[in-house]
Amino acid sequence: MIVDYNKLNKKMKGTSVPKPLSGTLSGHAAGEPFDKHVYAEIKKQFPKNTFRQYEYLNDLFSKNPDVIGFDARQALFNSPTVLFLLSRGKNATDKWSMENPFDEKQNDTADILVVKDNFYELIDIKTRNILKSAQPPNIISSYKLAQLCAKMIDNKEFDNFTINYFELDWKLEHDRLTCTNAHFASLFNANPSDLYINWAAAMQIQFHVCDLPQTFKDTREKWTELYLKHFVTQAKKRAGDMIIKFVKPFEKYIN
Amino acid sequence: MIVDYNKLNKKMKGTSVPKPLSGTLSGHAAGEPFDKHVYAEIKKQFPKNTFRQYEYLNDLFSKNPDVIGFDARQALFNSPTVLFLLSRGKNATDKWSMENPFDEKQNDTADILVVKDNFYELIDIKTRNILKSAQPPNIISSYKLAQLCAKMIDNKEFDNFTINYFELDWKLEHDRLTCTNAHFASLFNANPSDLYINWAAAMQIQFHVCDLPQTFKDTREKWTELYLKHFVTQAKKRAGDMIIKFVKPFEKYIN
Repeated sequence: MIVDYNKLNKKMKGTSVPKPLSGTLSGHAAGEPFDKHVYAEIKKQFPKNTFRQYEYLNDLFSKNPDVIGFDARQALFNSPTVLFLLSRGKNATDKWSMENPFDEKQNDTADILVVKDNFYELIDIKTRNILKSAQPPNIISSYKLAQLCAKMIDNKEFDNFTINYFELDWKLEHDRLTCTNAHFASLFNANPSDLYINWAAAMQIQFHVCDLPQTFKDTREKWTELYLKHFVTQAKKRAGDMIIKFVKPFEKYIN
Repeated sequence: MIVDYNKLNKKMKGTSVPKPLSGTLSGHAAGEPFDKHVYAEIKKQFPKNTFRQYEYLNDLFSKNPDVIGFDARQALFNSPTVLFLLSRGKNATDKWSMENPFDEKQNDTADILVVKDNFYELIDIKTRNILKSAQPPNIISSYKLAQLCAKMIDNKEFDNFTINYFELDWKLEHDRLTCTNAHFASLFNANPSDLYINWAAAMQIQFHVCDLPQTFKDTREKWTELYLKHFVTQAKKRAGDMIIKFVKPFEKYIN
């Protein structure tokens, strides 16, 4: 791990950002200015290593101007797993040029990327209005995470990246959002069987960062195996539940 | 059917509303001012019969001030099917009073309700930025519709309500949204098997109103039977697809 989250926590607590002019204060978008705030702070600590995901891709492709086209650009990643996590689609990658770089994309895996000595630290910022009780936010697609685990096993890549979450709690004070607290959790320090999959919400894993137990002590390889077991068990359960809830009660009407 | 949608279409085309001050022009919320515009127009034509869903409930309960509590208030509806479509939950209904009436709710079934001679016309307004190609919007939960069809069959209620959709297409012109066209479709004029169910998006039926074929000519009773067949078939298919996509590929990693 590159970033010191305890230090980051102390830096953030008590800081404030202007209330967004547009939009309501409900929804996860409200705290977005904090995302930029955290990025600026990490960048201050690691100026050469801190990127937005799209910035990293623009940087990588710009440094290799002779490498053109999807396949060649994919090969610039020295890790198939990191490639899977960070790369864009074929069409977008084919079209990339210095004049037509990538822009921020809503469903990029990471908000912030810190890269050092071939280690990739993916950081996703979650913001939370402490005065409202909200559903846990979408964290990552459970299916994407299953594909990721399979790739880690296939390529025996267990130590070259991590996925971290940083939650900023805020409240509205005098037209500004003030950070009251912050919480850190690493996905791979959670017990895979604790991860809740909301199948109806695009199969997203959902949790509040502050509520995620960080009790997993075994190896990363073990983690991937346990997660895949969990995912497969939950997928089977959901398929069975669908029959019980959506098929059985209606069968008598359709003979 | 109470409302004349051809007439409504002519009234709407070419009209404009101020661009919303907050929020972006992407997303379905952008056209929301048109929703109010359509409501005002229908209300002009049927002043005593046109309601917001919450207004209708407030009106019904206000006219029966001695009827108190969930069960008694539920009994005010003379139709179990309409009750299922329009009523709020137990807690909210228990708490209702003249001083604490219902307010608009995001997931109410209808935007507009026209009630005449014990016939309920539910109208949902969909607005669409014609300059952006967007995913078809959420229409109604496929599960809720299945429950509705079962209730219709159980209570032999096939003729006392309908569910209609009215799409307003708009574009941004000089800081105003101008309605370029409008489209009408009735849910029960669509062939049930044409209804696309997006299981990952909260099991919502999704379509653009302008694209919904209105080719169903049989009885409403037949419609409910065909829809339940469609729903059950699709639920079984989704359960099977989940095993193929989310279980099989990962089994080799987990024993």
